[in-house]
Amino acid sequence: MTLRVVEIFGPTIQGEGALIGEPTVFVRTGGCDYRCSWCDSLHAVNSANRHDWKPMSAEAVMEDIKRLSGNRPLTVSLSGGNPAIHDFAPLIALGKSQGYRFACETQGSIAKPWFAELDTLVLSPKPPSSGETVDWDAFEQCLYAAGTTADVAIKIVIFDDEDFLWAQKAHARFPDLPLYLQPGNPMVDPEKPVDLTETTSRLEWLIDKVVAASWFAPRVLPQLHVLVWGNKRGV
Amino acid sequence: MTLRVVEIFGPTIQGEGALIGEPTVFVRTGGCDYRCSWCDSLHAVNSANRHDWKPMSAEAVMEDIKRLSGNRPLTVSLSGGNPAIHDFAPLIALGKSQGYRFACETQGSIAKPWFAELDTLVLSPKPPSSGETVDWDAFEQCLYAAGTTADVAIKIVIFDDEDFLWAQKAHARFPDLPLYLQPGNPMVDPEKPVDLTETTSRLEWLIDKVVAASWFAPRVLPQLHVLVWGNKRGV
Repeated sequence: MTLRVVEIFGPTIQGEGALIGEPTVFVRTGGCDYRCSWCDSLHAVNSANRHDWKPMSAEAVMEDIKRLSGNRPLTVSLSGGNPAIHDFAPLIALGKSQGYRFACETQGSIAKPWFAELDTLVLSPKPPSSGETVDWDAFEQCLYAAGTTADVAIKIVIFDDEDFLWAQKAHARFPDLPLYLQPGNPMVDPEKPVDLTETTSRLEWLIDKVVAASWFAPRVLPQLHVLVWGNKRGV
Repeated sequence: MTLRVVEIFGPTIQGEGALIGEPTVFVRTGGCDYRCSWCDSLHAVNSANRHDWKPMSAEAVMEDIKRLSGNRPLTVSLSGGNPAIHDFAPLIALGKSQGYRFACETQGSIAKPWFAELDTLVLSPKPPSSGETVDWDAFEQCLYAAGTTADVAIKIVIFDDEDFLWAQKAHARFPDLPLYLQPGNPMVDPEKPVDLTETTSRLEWLIDKVVAASWFAPRVLPQLHVLVWGNKRGV
């Protein structure tokens, strides 16, 4: 089985969600079953770019991870696009045998048996502002696939009031899963700088929403990589 | 027993460390056995301010927490100064009976039996740039006091290369405890604005240090409250 690899980069820190701040090497594969209006990784989604996605074996990917990390085990984040369209089972088995840990972030539209081999699975169902519609049956299949060994968390991006109300309903479906909210970032053009003040203002807006609703279940976190590097790729 | 309360504020989010992003009400008590050169809470440390610290019973503090949180249980963070110079046992018992959770952040110089009643204990030993010297025996007493019920994590503020090397040695003493590194913030004057670009540059510097050292044990996190509100108090 080959993976279609957009980029392998790091170590850097995980910028968002359950593992925020964790030193990580990212493996980003190409292809997605969604096309969110505000996608920040279109280069891994838009099939017009598919000729730039390099077919690689699990062994070749693992060699890159080991080279980047100086053979010191760390967390590997499987990202995309939707990484769940690929078969990561061989890579995970290879990496775990050498002490590496694996996290995956996916919208939760496609369940894979290898979810059960992960250390961390972050499911990020897409709110109305994305233009996509969540298939909750498929989402639950992802939870079943993860079983009880992986730490599972939900992360929801919030652009507006409608997204916020939607997130509250999504949380009501899975009240026992840790929930992370993240303000949306509309400034996704890699050629353009990110306005730091606007980015922190969006975080403040989301904190204010949570406090005003007396909704204390979610953690509210920014995207640290956007604060530090804007939309630069490979960091 | 009365607590000497500097301020009770929130709900806001926890801006740093193990519970970053968590909706929290803060109870800050006055007094500290340290005087770190870069202290960001001098109003709770400098005894010249002690007449502003209000003596309050555990019941009165709990009433404030409940009013601020609209009676909805959330995490209460015990902060200072060094909160470990006070007896928080009555407040914790009262709050837990009503579903509130308790976290405490202390340098680890004074152990208290009520550490065992906490949900989360964050010990932040002070690196050389603070001008203080850690008593590791006292620090270990804090770990023993926490026992096995509280989640314990270490958080270290890093201003310079010496602090960084010191943090690596500190981690070697307690390799099994989750470790959080945080860039130092020299801009602690509440009357002066914080330079966002400098703040994110310090985070980038610390990420670069961790990556260059291939030291993948710690998570690297900023102070979100500084990014959002600068040095404003009560948020």
